[in-house]
Amino acid sequence: MSALKPLADRVLIEPIPAEEKTASGIIIPDAAKEKPLKGTVIAAGNGKKDEPMTVKEGDTVLFGQYSGTEIKIEGKTYLIMKEADIYGVFQA
Amino acid sequence: MSALKPLADRVLIEPIPAEEKTASGIIIPDAAKEKPLKGTVIAAGNGKKDEPMTVKEGDTVLFGQYSGTEIKIEGKTYLIMKEADIYGVFQA
Amino acid sequence: MSALKPLADRVLIEPIPAEEKTASGIIIPDAAKEKPLKGTVIAAGNGKKDEPMTVKEGDTVLFGQYSGTEIKIEGKTYLIMKEADIYGVFQA
Amino acid sequence: MSALKPLADRVLIEPIPAEEKTASGIIIPDAAKEKPLKGTVIAAGNGKKDEPMTVKEGDTVLFGQYSGTEIKIEGKTYLIMKEADIYGVFQA
Amino acid sequence: MSALKPLADRVLIEPIPAEEKTASGIIIPDAAKEKPLKGTVIAAGNGKKDEPMTVKEGDTVLFGQYSGTEIKIEGKTYLIMKEADIYGVFQA
Amino acid sequence: MSALKPLADRVLIEPIPAEEKTASGIIIPDAAKEKPLKGTVIAAGNGKKDEPMTVKEGDTVLFGQYSGTEIKIEGKTYLIMKEADIYGVFQA
Amino acid sequence: MSALKPLADRVLIEPIPAEEKTASGIIIPDAAKEKPLKGTVIAAGNGKKDEPMTVKEGDTVLFGQYSGTEIKIEGKTYLIMKEADIYGVFQA
Repeated sequence: MSALKPLADRVLIEPIPAEEKTASGIIIPDAAKEKPLKGTVIAAGNGKKDEPMTVKEGDTVLFGQYSGTEIKIEGKTYLIMKEADIYGVFQA
Repeated sequence: MSALKPLADRVLIEPIPAEEKTASGIIIPDAAKEKPLKGTVIAAGNGKKDEPMTVKEGDTVLFGQYSGTEIKIEGKTYLIMKEADIYGVFQA
Repeated sequence: MSALKPLADRVLIEPIPAEEKTASGIIIPDAAKEKPLKGTVIAAGNGKKDEPMTVKEGDTVLFGQYSGTEIKIEGKTYLIMKEADIYGVFQA
Repeated sequence: MSALKPLADRVLIEPIPAEEKTASGIIIPDAAKEKPLKGTVIAAGNGKKDEPMTVKEGDTVLFGQYSGTEIKIEGKTYLIMKEADIYGVFQA
Repeated sequence: MSALKPLADRVLIEPIPAEEKTASGIIIPDAAKEKPLKGTVIAAGNGKKDEPMTVKEGDTVLFGQYSGTEIKIEGKTYLIMKEADIYGVFQA
Repeated sequence: MSALKPLADRVLIEPIPAEEKTASGIIIPDAAKEKPLKGTVIAAGNGKKDEPMTVKEGDTVLFGQYSGTEIKIEGKTYLIMKEADIYGVFQA
Repeated sequence: MSALKPLADRVLIEPIPAEEKTASGIIIPDAAKEKPLKGTVIAAGNGKKDEPMTVKEGDTVLFGQYSGTEIKIEGKTYLIMKEADIYGVFQA
């Protein structure tokens, strides 16, 4: 369980390094204007009024390169961002 | 099935190269201020509260030249954008 | 029937050249800050939630000079714009 | 009847030249930052959802100097603007 | 009765010169960033949907120095502004 | 009773000089980016539709240094601001 | 009990110095673009219409480095900010 419970529509994400080539074969383009990044959802907020969350703990998600705020918990770097900044969820 | 499920009102699109001349005879104008582009819908989100999606997998759509964010899946380039950035759907 | 079905509150319009003098006698002013233009509605979207469309296929409409995005279908130039960018409809 | 039916909350207005001194004695101030102008409502739209129109054909209205877009119908200059750009209606 | 009926949430105000020292003893500060001004409500609109008006004809009101648009009726200068630009009403 | 009744969500406040050291021991920091100030509520508006007021006459409140508009009533300086510009209320 | 009751969706927070290494092992990154900070909730407002508060007195929260306004009560520095500026709550 995460030490930090995100508020409202925020999500705590552990980023997956871009050089790592995953089973699903995603490669981040070299020269794109903006490089989307992948990460694992560590914890999600409870959503806002009438707006439940879609992502859940364990999901692998894609998000914008400049999305969210970086924090460190026990030496590891995480990102905290709003669910609206997440582009999509990778399917198992 | 797409490896990536777009969130909310987002759509995953495989762009169709502009030089390709399709059956419906669309030609992108040379000197337009903004060149609309065509693409195929690969996957669509579930929409937002009270706003179901209109486009669906397989639709050929027209969208703005600068719309969306480029990502690569298994070597192919895709775009992820909000449905509101799509101008229209080509009819079969 | 149009090859392109506009999404939501968008309208596909075939512009009427400004020099054409119509039966209703509209003349576009020479030195206006912004020159409104006339066009024929080729196809209209289905509107947005609780906002049905007012214009329909065949309507002659007036719109701002810089409204919409230019596209070409089978060699002809069209405009795609939101209904809110249309000033009014000419009456038969 | 006007040849042009304004859409939604738009109003078609025939401006009254500022030098014309009317019965109600309105004089437009010389050195104001913005000179309000008078005009006659030629046609009004049907309003927006849950927002019916207040002005009607024949009303004499006051509006901002830079409001609306100029168009010509049969050689006469008109303005088309949103009702929200109209300051008030002169009473008979 | 005023010759001009303000639309929606607008109010027609006859400004009270700042040098006039009233019974209630209001003095406009000399060096304030913005000088609030007093005026008499001459006519008020009917309000907007679900937002009835608070001020009424005859009220003495306080408003921002740069609020509203100046107009002249029969040689007198008035201001027309939205009720939201009025700070408060002086009590009799 | 105040001579001025604030409109809607506005509040009339008599500021308490920053050098005054109160019983509750509040001291305004010297070098803060923005210095919050204390004041006494003299009069409050009736709120906006579905948004009743929280503060009431006599409350000691904290607000931003640049909030509100300064006015003088009978030689005393007051501030008029929206309730949303008030940070909190001091408890007795 | 806090001397200051925050209004609406505001929260009064006592910041925890960044150098302090807590039991949960959070370390603020050195060279992050923006350094999130930790603090203890001293008092929370009653929320806004249909938006109850999530955080409560005693919660340890994470928030942006530039969030809120600094105030001093009895010599101690506090921050007052909107709940929406809080990223998350640390779990016991």
